[in-house]
Amino acid sequence: MKIDHIGIATRQLKEATALWHDALGLEVDSSEEVGEQGVRIAMLPIGETHIELLEPLTPDSPIGKFLDKRGPGIHHIAIRVDDILAALRQMKEKGARLIDETPRVGAGGCLVAFIHPSSTNGVLLELVQPQ
Amino acid sequence: MKIDHIGIATRQLKEATALWHDALGLEVDSSEEVGEQGVRIAMLPIGETHIELLEPLTPDSPIGKFLDKRGPGIHHIAIRVDDILAALRQMKEKGARLIDETPRVGAGGCLVAFIHPSSTNGVLLELVQPQ
Repeated sequence: MKIDHIGIATRQLKEATALWHDALGLEVDSSEEVGEQGVRIAMLPIGETHIELLEPLTPDSPIGKFLDKRGPGIHHIAIRVDDILAALRQMKEKGARLIDETPRVGAGGCLVAFIHPSSTNGVLLELVQPQ
Repeated sequence: MKIDHIGIATRQLKEATALWHDALGLEVDSSEEVGEQGVRIAMLPIGETHIELLEPLTPDSPIGKFLDKRGPGIHHIAIRVDDILAALRQMKEKGARLIDETPRVGAGGCLVAFIHPSSTNGVLLELVQPQ
């Protein structure tokens, strides 16, 4: 198990990638639009993990609403697991509140599922299983 | 360069460590009080990095104030660097707003320095150089 990425909500991907490049020398590895989640994303590798910069495609997307409410900043932590179904089952047994009862296809074609922050110290958690 | 830890503000360390253990099977590796920063911390390894759970020692400590304002959740990201003085100099040259102009001793005896969120997409960033 490891951190797959740390998701950071930004208003403008271009400015945000420049900021992270200037601050820490990080470079964009890949970028894509995930229409279903209403975001444009850029992945910046750091060690075994990534900073994932997220720009909303529309104001009423989840990231758009987050930006309205809290402004730019850390949005979620994604954990890479080998078996997302087993991980979701185990978390549910332990009382976690699942946002996605079954995984869906996310960035990079991975299977992903979100866990509600109320179960995890106010942290929005994403599980990621590479395909 | 890699993520040293992700700092998460919690009201009660004991409950929080139980939550992360139940959710993901994470175990506490080390814990300590950092009086200068007014926190009790627990480090939970995950891959090459750690979840750092932070409980305030007093309500008027930085973590106490964060909890009052935003509730439990992700507080900061810490990046491990080899040369914290060089990293701070570089960030300052690029226009970053430093909270600590010079490093101080943090958890685990590391040299640490914080960068203001206004420079980094609303993310409170900590630089960490192991001693």
